[in-house]
This record gives sequence, structure tokens and C-alpha cells, in this order.
Amino acid sequence: MILPDDDPALWRVEQSDYLVRNPWLTVRQDAVQLPNGGFIPDYFVFEYPNWVNIIAVTTNGQLILVRQYRHGIAGVHYELCAGTVDPADGDSGAGLLLAAQRELLEETGYGGGNWQSFMSLSANTGTHTNMNHTFLATGVTWQQPQQLDLTEDITVHLVSPERALAIIDSGQMPQAMCAAPLLRYLLGRA
Amino acid sequence: MILPDDDPALWRVEQSDYLVRNPWLTVRQDAVQLPNGGFIPDYFVFEYPNWVNIIAVTTNGQLILVRQYRHGIAGVHYELCAGTVDPADGDSGAGLLLAAQRELLEETGYGGGNWQSFMSLSANTGTHTNMNHTFLATGVTWQQPQQLDLTEDITVHLVSPERALAIIDSGQMPQAMCAAPLLRYLLGRA
Repeated sequence: MILPDDDPALWRVEQSDYLVRNPWLTVRQDAVQLPNGGFIPDYFVFEYPNWVNIIAVTTNGQLILVRQYRHGIAGVHYELCAGTVDPADGDSGAGLLLAAQRELLEETGYGGGNWQSFMSLSANTGTHTNMNHTFLATGVTWQQPQQLDLTEDITVHLVSPERALAIIDSGQMPQAMCAAPLLRYLLGRA
Repeated sequence: MILPDDDPALWRVEQSDYLVRNPWLTVRQDAVQLPNGGFIPDYFVFEYPNWVNIIAVTTNGQLILVRQYRHGIAGVHYELCAGTVDPADGDSGAGLLLAAQRELLEETGYGGGNWQSFMSLSANTGTHTNMNHTFLATGVTWQQPQQLDLTEDITVHLVSPERALAIIDSGQMPQAMCAAPLLRYLLGRA
């Protein structure tokens, strides 16, 4: 893709420090020089490992959604099955695929079928260093019971494409990283 | 919408403290009791004001996109025009609309036309307390030159719906909060 000639210039990082570093949250504070002469001494970004989620379609053409409690907005909503890429998985295509296949199997009990990389998005490009990689898995079948972590309470729901669209339309899938790839799939961009 | 009988239960907050409180970042640390008996002493959420973005369509049927540098992923990409809701705006429908109209005018110079609430999403339901509210503005026209803040360097791009879809397909709009509502609009769900 040819980029516009007048494209905004990048910022230059003058100094980086960590404001918070613990197992669940890493906040980096950058002092940045802006191309137009401005200076921001405290621009904060969140360093996370990459994430994956899965548009999983069964052999019957049903989409596999999950419901779980999310503490940011303190509610339970529909989502795609999702998870974090383990450092041991690595961030190669094969590592991301491995993480996605493991998450689908553990959270929903489904697996097999054909897998392809579908779309990569950011939760917020201004603040997050990581990306969420969506895989499309078609022809998946039930393999085994769920294997949930102690902090996980996840229900599994097989829905038609029409019902998935109604769920998004009615605001029952507020997670943007789920709604965007699912809408793109429903638009026929596979 | 009727919810499933087996819906996951909510978490109970036992204690809340602020780990970080400054003008650009507020991190709250909650100690939470899980329904299944688990306990998490340090679950972190980010408290932000609500955000707005705009699917703006000109009288000629062109979509108004912007490009700007985003420091999380350290790159320049296509986005919808977006901004933060000022506390003075309030979080009523009228307040959100006011914020959206102001952002479009300041960042792109376009305004007027017909406005409607289109979709509300979260950057990450697990960690963000706020929502991003998308407005659909049709029949907008050029009103005045851009009025940018010192830290803003934003270029404006009028594109066809087909070109917008090609931009998303090629990974040039990685911001999930932009891609999701734009895909839903392109799917004809207005």
C-alpha cells in the first residue's frame, strides 16, 4: 500500500522507565520528543504479551462463543474464545496458532478442523504494545470437556451466524477485539 | 435478550485502592472474591473517561478517515476520528454527541449533517472501565480548517467504502475500536 506523502512523523523516545512491573501489569513511562517540537515527559504504555482469539465454526456451521465475567465493565457478555500467548509459544505464526488451538480446546473443549490466520488488531494502539491475533477455525468438533483455570468460569454457546450478528447489534458483545473480526467474517472476508 | 440460566456469576470487590492516579493514567487495584471460592488480591483496572469516535460520511458518500502516530504500537495507521469525552460534556446521550461533533470539527474540519448513536464497545472489557461510543454522521460537509492541539499531528483522508474495506483487509486500521464499527457500517447495519 502506498502511504500518503504528508504522513505524520514518528515520536522519538528520549527516556524509558517502568512505573509498574508485576506479573499482571507492566506500565512503561516514556519521555517523548514530538516532531512538531512538543515534549511529553510522561506518556504511559502497557506492555503485554500478544493475545489470540478464535472464530471457531463447527462442522454444522455454528459459531462457538463464550460468556464470562469481565471486571473492567463488571459484567458478563458474549465473546470469542481468547487467551494470552505464552512466552514459550513464541510470537511466530506457529507459536500463535499453538496458543489459539490450546485456548479453544481448554476453554470450549472443541478442536480439530482447519485453521488460518484471519486478522490482527490492537486493543488500543495508543496505549498497548501488543496485538490480538484472530484465527479462523472451520470444521471444528467437540473433543473433550473444558479444562478451566481456577479463576475461569466460562460457558460455551453455539450460535448461528444470524444470531451472532443479532448479539453484536444488541450490544451483547462489547469487546471490540471480538466484534471486529467476527463482523469481518460475517461480511464474508474470509 | 434472555440470558442463559448457567450464566457466570459476578465477582465481589472486597477492597479498592489506587495504584496510580495522575492526569493521564488511573490504575485501580481491586481485591476480588470469585464465585467459585477463588480470591485475587491484585486485579488491576484502568479508569478512563468515556471515548467517542465517528463514522463520518460526506454528502458525496466518502468516508472521513484520519492518520496519526500512536505510541503503543509506534506507528501511523488509518483510524476513525476519535476523542475523549470531557467531564463538562457529561455522559448523557447529548453530552456524548457534543463531544463527537466537537472532535470531528476540530480534527477534520467537517461537520453538519445528520448524527445518530451507532455502537458502543470496550477497548478491553477485562481492564477498561470506560466505553467507546461510535456515532454515525451522514451528509457532513467541510466547515473550517483543522484546529489541532499541540500534541496532535493528524491528516485527513476521504475514501470510498470499498477503499475503507481494503484498508481494513490489509491491516492498515489495527485499532479494534475503529475497525469494528466501520465493519458493522459496511455490513449495512446502520
